[in-house]
Amino acid sequence: QLLELVIEHFNPSLSEQSLQGKTVVITAGPTREAIDPVRYISNHSSGKMGFALASAAKGLGATVKIISGPVNLTTPSGCERFDVSSALDMHQRSLELGATCDIFIACAAVADYRVAEVASHKIKKTDNNDALQINLLKNPDIVADVAKLTPKPFVLGFAAETQDLEHYARDKMQRKGLDMIAANDVSIPGQGFNSSDNALQVYWPNGQSVLSLNDKQRLAQQLMDLVVQQIDK
Amino acid sequence: QLLELVIEHFNPSLSEQSLQGKTVVITAGPTREAIDPVRYISNHSSGKMGFALASAAKGLGATVKIISGPVNLTTPSGCERFDVSSALDMHQRSLELGATCDIFIACAAVADYRVAEVASHKIKKTDNNDALQINLLKNPDIVADVAKLTPKPFVLGFAAETQDLEHYARDKMQRKGLDMIAANDVSIPGQGFNSSDNALQVYWPNGQSVLSLNDKQRLAQQLMDLVVQQIDK
Repeated sequence: QLLELVIEHFNPSLSEQSLQGKTVVITAGPTREAIDPVRYISNHSSGKMGFALASAAKGLGATVKIISGPVNLTTPSGCERFDVSSALDMHQRSLELGATCDIFIACAAVADYRVAEVASHKIKKTDNNDALQINLLKNPDIVADVAKLTPKPFVLGFAAETQDLEHYARDKMQRKGLDMIAANDVSIPGQGFNSSDNALQVYWPNGQSVLSLNDKQRLAQQLMDLVVQQIDK
Repeated sequence: QLLELVIEHFNPSLSEQSLQGKTVVITAGPTREAIDPVRYISNHSSGKMGFALASAAKGLGATVKIISGPVNLTTPSGCERFDVSSALDMHQRSLELGATCDIFIACAAVADYRVAEVASHKIKKTDNNDALQINLLKNPDIVADVAKLTPKPFVLGFAAETQDLEHYARDKMQRKGLDMIAANDVSIPGQGFNSSDNALQVYWPNGQSVLSLNDKQRLAQQLMDLVVQQIDK
């Protein structure tokens, strides 16, 4: 890897710099929706795919900004990182950074709902409440709101599904005004959420591509190549 | 540290072995309660305190078994580890291992409630549900159920509170039949949940002790010393 860096330093033309001058914003990881000071709702996203995409975009010469939920990952070299916790935090940061980027990649697993009333003290378990309800409110749709920005960046979304992949993915792309969507089947063990490997079905309005099971770093490079092909059209 | 190990190996009497021949079971970390295949409810417990207690108990010569929720920690050398996810899993394992131990330490931040009906597919966000309810059921009380076992181990519980520490802690100790309880105020930043430091107020039926802010490894040794004092009475 050191050799590659040295070669790149003295002869940058040897490495492909197809995103030189472009700014890429990537959301990554889960969000956490507070229930009270100690409890929260979250999901199994590790952030690995988003961070791999950041690294791949950086490798193509882009200026890369990662908006990250709580993850245990090291920021890829040369990328700028903005840490957030809740979906509302991520929404605000995404609109701010999305307004001045060329490519927006919504890779984070954002909570669709937040807790309606967050308790300021830890909710006590009492003898007379064997059942309890948590009331949830729908969170704003980050990727759809970024896709409504003027000027609009190229927007790549993700769809984690457990059934009927292409149907849900193409529907989501159209409803949200995305330029491309990468769908993965999270019901298959050993890929996707919290795993080092993944497989993706990538759709855009007039085409599609299958990226078969691979480690997320390699998969991220293949996905960024598809993005480059589409923005060059 | 190597020197200590060498000295200990050739002259074990130099190190205090006050738990030699005793079995200590420690629960640690958070539990995760599934909402659907990708979402869950959890809490901010890192597992650091439980793992530090395991290490401290091992240092006193005990046979140590850790029942751990999902954490990013290395198992202390010489301890046996049992990984669990939900509160129901942890309950089952705790009754099994609690039945044959001398000291049971309930350090895990167990979810008080689980989701009543776990969805087998990812719950879809639809346009017509801006609000949503999650119905929860109370989980079994692990530490109270272990304290009902015959023969009963010495049971140390924890209380994470945001107000009125001694009142809630002593009430919890009495209701659940515990022999000792360690309470910490999780509303103070920089200690407790997800932190490397903590401060504890320790209560037992006829006494109490304040363990002031310290790193969790040192605090765990102080707490184990209090346990040793109580079981020796």
